[in-house]
Amino acid sequence: MSDSSPRRLLILAEGFSGDPHWAKTMNGVLRYGADDVVAILDSTRVGERERDVPIVGDVESALAFSPDAALVGVATVGGRFPPAWRDLLRKCVGHGIGIDNGLHEFIEDDPELTRLAAASGAILRDLRRPPADLEVATGANLDVPGDIVLTVGSDCAIGKMTVSLELAREAEARGVFARFVPTGQTGIAIAGWGISVDAVVADFIAGAAERLVVEGGRRGGDLLFVEGQGSLSHPGYSGVTLGLIHGSAPHAFVLCHMAGAIEIDGYPGHPLLPLAELVELHERISLPCRRAAVACIALNTRNLDNGAALAAIAAAEAETGLIADDPVRFGSGRLLDALLAHLARR
Amino acid sequence: MSDSSPRRLLILAEGFSGDPHWAKTMNGVLRYGADDVVAILDSTRVGERERDVPIVGDVESALAFSPDAALVGVATVGGRFPPAWRDLLRKCVGHGIGIDNGLHEFIEDDPELTRLAAASGAILRDLRRPPADLEVATGANLDVPGDIVLTVGSDCAIGKMTVSLELAREAEARGVFARFVPTGQTGIAIAGWGISVDAVVADFIAGAAERLVVEGGRRGGDLLFVEGQGSLSHPGYSGVTLGLIHGSAPHAFVLCHMAGAIEIDGYPGHPLLPLAELVELHERISLPCRRAAVACIALNTRNLDNGAALAAIAAAEAETGLIADDPVRFGSGRLLDALLAHLARR
Repeated sequence: MSDSSPRRLLILAEGFSGDPHWAKTMNGVLRYGADDVVAILDSTRVGERERDVPIVGDVESALAFSPDAALVGVATVGGRFPPAWRDLLRKCVGHGIGIDNGLHEFIEDDPELTRLAAASGAILRDLRRPPADLEVATGANLDVPGDIVLTVGSDCAIGKMTVSLELAREAEARGVFARFVPTGQTGIAIAGWGISVDAVVADFIAGAAERLVVEGGRRGGDLLFVEGQGSLSHPGYSGVTLGLIHGSAPHAFVLCHMAGAIEIDGYPGHPLLPLAELVELHERISLPCRRAAVACIALNTRNLDNGAALAAIAAAEAETGLIADDPVRFGSGRLLDALLAHLARR
Repeated sequence: MSDSSPRRLLILAEGFSGDPHWAKTMNGVLRYGADDVVAILDSTRVGERERDVPIVGDVESALAFSPDAALVGVATVGGRFPPAWRDLLRKCVGHGIGIDNGLHEFIEDDPELTRLAAASGAILRDLRRPPADLEVATGANLDVPGDIVLTVGSDCAIGKMTVSLELAREAEARGVFARFVPTGQTGIAIAGWGISVDAVVADFIAGAAERLVVEGGRRGGDLLFVEGQGSLSHPGYSGVTLGLIHGSAPHAFVLCHMAGAIEIDGYPGHPLLPLAELVELHERISLPCRRAAVACIALNTRNLDNGAALAAIAAAEAETGLIADDPVRFGSGRLLDALLAHLARR
């Protein structure tokens, strides 16, 4: 799934390397990234390790590991840099270490950092900055070679990116030429390309998604796994979800769900739709000229014990008549079997 | 529907005042606007009149009508100002006449115009510029007093704004306190407030729509008619449509359709969904905590003769079981009756 030669990466995770929510980008890159992560910077955990990567307390200590680039590996409240971070960024750039930044606050626009980068040769990259030349979707998505599979879900932040990556890995392990197509900052940090579709101008969501599958096709792959965003029934983000559905023009969906969840996270009083209803809704809303159906259900069972996880999987299968599984907990084999059989039947 | 005291408005429509497509904003403001349009500028039609408003050939001639402000009343290719327009804008601003601009190219960012405006006291306003402080939808849309009605459609540019305005007028004529809620540049030019929801960052579509209905409720009204955008089945703009549906949290939809159309305009090979299917799709995709249904069908029959228009209306009624009519051609009475009865039954 790599698209360029691996770099020696320092992950900046000051204060948050141990937090699964805030360190989502760090964890995604550690698990799935193509770069070699040589060190993690978090002064609150010096001397510990995360997935065998040493944690250091300052930029000077990180230099011993000769990093080529530093990744902002944690989210921050409001997507902005806390004041203490400026010093970290300045030091990295001063030492010629480039920065990959997925926060809403752009570093390419920062006069001080750009001046330092010009002097040291460090490359500043804002992963969430949309391309300047986006356009409305044109229909080029329908001409992409290979099959397109989009992960969709009952809510945000339940593992759509992870499911796409796990299915792509499983496909590659079976000799299928698969490609992950990133649509958010963590996916972009993992794959080294992509567009954060939630950051584009509303008129261009489908156009951005179309450009991503066209680019995925150009890079090659018989099976494109497009990272989904949000949910059709999410009161805040559904617009991004539908633009991504129409712009990526998938041949099949994989429906993701957090086992046991009954409300949209952060929106009390907004119930999740039942799985069977979500399955039908996605089929009905797919492009009339490229109808797509849900091929299988990926359940996130991390809040359940083993017995409860198996029971949730059986219940989802009974409700929808589709194969369901937790690919992180039990492997992606059954889901990929179901997906490939579904695509072959089309 | 007016929200401020009327101004004396000059409409800038150079070269395009006679073109129904390009002069959409001019025509909307002439038909529905709260301002007094005192002159139209179009050097290709000097001496003619449009809806009784005199057409002049240059800014100097327009001064005789003492305009307070000038509205960019035509769309341009790519949403940018042709070179000849700069001179028009400079002259208006030099004479202290403010500019309301709905093009993608922003005049508030133009160094020359802002300098001239600072000197003359003219106010420059970009109607499509989103507020800087938009946020994700919060749920405040559910607390808006009054009933919310959103126009939706089978395609773009088939008259959703017009239907909202006609229904609001008919309601006001019956003594109902109705308010039009603008979501695009022409609607904003007509009502003097609003947000162009297609121009906001994708994550904030629903947040912008929510802010609009909250603001509509604050301005007062027992019946809010929210201007719809795009279509749930539009391959380019569906994201804006769904974000607007969830963010405006309507109690009912009015479904708009261009009679006789079978494909998405500009997207050959993309069939329109049948009306009955669109009716069901909108109900299924409405917020689970505020289910909404289509109350009636507004047909645009401008391409048909009278007999064919009546036949199309009868066919739409037979297909959907709902009242259908063309509010521009035959009046809004039957549609409003159906809508009010639908809202009363909820």
